[in-house]
Amino acid sequence: MTTHKLPDAERTTALQSLPGWQNAKNQDAICRNFKFKDFNAAFGFMTRVALKAEQMNHHPEWFNVYNRVEVTLTTHDAKGVSALDIEMARFMDELAGQ
Amino acid sequence: MTTHKLPDAERTTALQSLPGWQNAKNQDAICRNFKFKDFNAAFGFMTRVALKAEQMNHHPEWFNVYNRVEVTLTTHDAKGVSALDIEMARFMDELAGQ
Repeated sequence: MTTHKLPDAERTTALQSLPGWQNAKNQDAICRNFKFKDFNAAFGFMTRVALKAEQMNHHPEWFNVYNRVEVTLTTHDAKGVSALDIEMARFMDELAGQ
Repeated sequence: MTTHKLPDAERTTALQSLPGWQNAKNQDAICRNFKFKDFNAAFGFMTRVALKAEQMNHHPEWFNVYNRVEVTLTTHDAKGVSALDIEMARFMDELAGQ
């Protein structure tokens, strides 16, 4: 089962391999701010993530204004961060790095 | 020119014809929360708005989690709400009502 809450040690290790991501301040979640060239690039990123999210049945919380996308990932069923969030974070980083 | 800040009276009249929209609390803007059936419907709405936004060269601030989309509209060049925001709000209402 991939949706259980990650033990602290696993979460710490995962975050170390995800530069840019950090623990959220107001909830048990991880977050990262992405900045793109323009709205086209930002919403293109969001669209690719949306397709992935539907496939995973695991959806981000996110805020967008123009070229910025602020993402928060958590697993409500697990009441915290699960392997699904780490998988989604890696996917986002791959996209954003392209 | 459509990007000047609307006079208070015009803004009030426009808001009266846009049920669900209200003045934002922390900035000179209007806002509305939309709720859809699921993420597919919410992101479908966002995608149609994104295409319109690029066409208008006028972009929303928005937060999405699953089936909810929280929208804030303002015109940075006008330092407030302009006719562009009213046009975008009407477009969103039309989409959401379908």
